[in-house]
Parts: sequence; structure tokens; C-alpha cells
Amino acid sequence: MQELKDRILAEGEVIGTHILKVDTFLNHQIDPAFILRMGKELADRFAGAGITRVLTVEASGIAVASAVALSLNVPVVFAKKKQASTQSDVYTSQIYSFTRQESVNITVSKKFLPADDVVLIVDDFLAHGEALKGLVDIVRQSGAGLAGAGIVIEKLFQRGGAALRAEGMRIETLAAIERMEPGKIVFA
Amino acid sequence: MQELKDRILAEGEVIGTHILKVDTFLNHQIDPAFILRMGKELADRFAGAGITRVLTVEASGIAVASAVALSLNVPVVFAKKKQASTQSDVYTSQIYSFTRQESVNITVSKKFLPADDVVLIVDDFLAHGEALKGLVDIVRQSGAGLAGAGIVIEKLFQRGGAALRAEGMRIETLAAIERMEPGKIVFA
Repeated sequence: MQELKDRILAEGEVIGTHILKVDTFLNHQIDPAFILRMGKELADRFAGAGITRVLTVEASGIAVASAVALSLNVPVVFAKKKQASTQSDVYTSQIYSFTRQESVNITVSKKFLPADDVVLIVDDFLAHGEALKGLVDIVRQSGAGLAGAGIVIEKLFQRGGAALRAEGMRIETLAAIERMEPGKIVFA
Repeated sequence: MQELKDRILAEGEVIGTHILKVDTFLNHQIDPAFILRMGKELADRFAGAGITRVLTVEASGIAVASAVALSLNVPVVFAKKKQASTQSDVYTSQIYSFTRQESVNITVSKKFLPADDVVLIVDDFLAHGEALKGLVDIVRQSGAGLAGAGIVIEKLFQRGGAALRAEGMRIETLAAIERMEPGKIVFA
């Protein structure tokens, strides 16, 4: 998506060779009209896939996942990183955050993932793929169908997408980065 | 907002006298078209207030805050509960969660709250007002103007709104609950 690549080049800040900061429009400040356009673009790529529900994980995936769900006219569920005191009967999976160097359990109430669902996973970033693998694990536990994943920015060099694509999963990305360093971002 | 009250009555689950679970459309599963209508309603109430930015806190405030910001055609910033490794130069405030019985620090990058901003705070729930007070504290630190707060559901009996209104703050709520018990919800 050219508009996204342009904004990454104009506003993104590369720290080292692995961290891309895009907090002006995606994961701290959000540009809601732009998020809506990105959501529509991801939804269009999965048109006809029979999706009945969008699944993401809190917090920075919520805005774009809601935009995708709005375009597809289906509900969106966000996995919680802390189980709410009122939440019982959940699917759970452990994910490891390389950025934070810690593991967290993510949970989704079973009632929101019936086995006859067709699920699209949406997230803001795909790097090592830990969050995505955790969400896939939860969909597998539920017995629902998995249409694939729609991702805003993929950092190809961290290889999470490659592993999941090798298993046959469909992953659509709006901007895929081959390599980067401060002042330079090379898209695939 | 009648549509919201109807959905709270139809889908909400009261636990004890203080917890209202509305995870079918607001804070675990999200109904994106309904969220958009609620966002527009809150935005309409603050039309003409000269708002330049919407402020919320992760995670369950993000969807409705994005919808308000979309209607107002301004960006939305969500305060983070864990400071990102890439985040420096932040405003911070401590909030206490009665539900979780723990304190957390919320942070907002200073660059997203310039002093000439006029800020609208948006959140899904207002109960004891701890999250709202923390967000107000951050706006005060920034020197920006505060237009008020737009809230989806207020639990009046937990008195957070009363304290802030007594200080002159404008708070708009889409559904205000006077009291509740399992099977019974009384709106103001």
C-alpha cells in the first residue's frame, strides 16, 4: 500500500536494525481516517473468504482490526493479555515478546470463537511471529476455520511470516520491509 | 443513547452490584458499526468545542476513542500502561484499578500533547474515575486545554464522575447507571 510506505518513510524512525517506531499514526497516536483506509484494503484482500469474525490482541492491534471488521461487517474480538476477573471459560496461549523479553498469556472467551466461525487474524506488526502464532493456536483450539492473517507492517528479516507461510497460512501485508537501518528502509 | 441502553439490558451481565460485563460489544468482542455510531454521538455532543486531539488509555478505550476521533477528524492518542522501550520524554500518571486492585503507571509521549491542543478524553467506562483522573492529570501536565470527557457507560453510584464534575469538568455519558443488581439495571 503506497500511502503506508510513504508514511513509514516520512514518519518512521528506525532504532538499530530491528525496531521501527511508527507511533505518529499506528501504535501510540492513531490517525483514524488512515486506519480506516488500511482496514478496508486488508478487508478487500480477503473478500469472498467467508470471514465471520476478526481476531486480534490488545492493544495496538485493536484500531486496525476494528477497521477491517467494519469493512467486512463482522465483529472483532481482541485477546486479553491479563485475564479479566469476570472472564471464565477461555482459550489461552502463551506468547513471548522479544521487544519486552517476557512471556504473557493471552486469553479469548470461548463463546466468541464458535467452531463454525471463519476467522481472520489482524495485527499491526509481524516480526518474529510470536503474537500471530499465539492467535493461530487459539483459533486451532476453538476448531474454527482460519482464513489467514492481515498485517499492517511485516519485518521480513525477523522470519515469523516465513515460518507460518511454510505451513500453508495465507498472510497479507500492507508494507513488507526487507531490511532497515537508521535513515534507510528497504521495502520488499 | 437508547440503542446502547437497549443493548446493555439485552446483553449486559451484572455481577454483584458493581460489575457490569458488556463483553459482547464493547470490551472483549467489539461491534464495529455500533462503536462507530457511539463515537459519532459523543463527537456530536462536543461539536464546536474546538477539539484538536482525543486521548484515551489502552486497551478497551481504543476502539470508541478512534471512532470519536474519526468523527471529529482529529488524531487519537492512547496512553500506554507499560512504557515502551522506545518511548522517552513522556508524561506519566499513576492510576489505581479497583477491579484489579493494583496501581499502574500510564504514559503519553510529550510530543503528542502540545500545549496549544484542546483535548477530549474518551473511555469506555467511568466508575471510581481513577483512569479518568490519571488522564486529566496528564493533560494538566502538558498545559493543553481540556474540553471534557466522553464516556460510553457511567456507573454513577461509584461517584468518580461526581467528583470531577464538582471541579467543573464537562463529562458526557451515553448511558448512566444509577444502580444495578443481577437481572436489574436502573438507568438515570
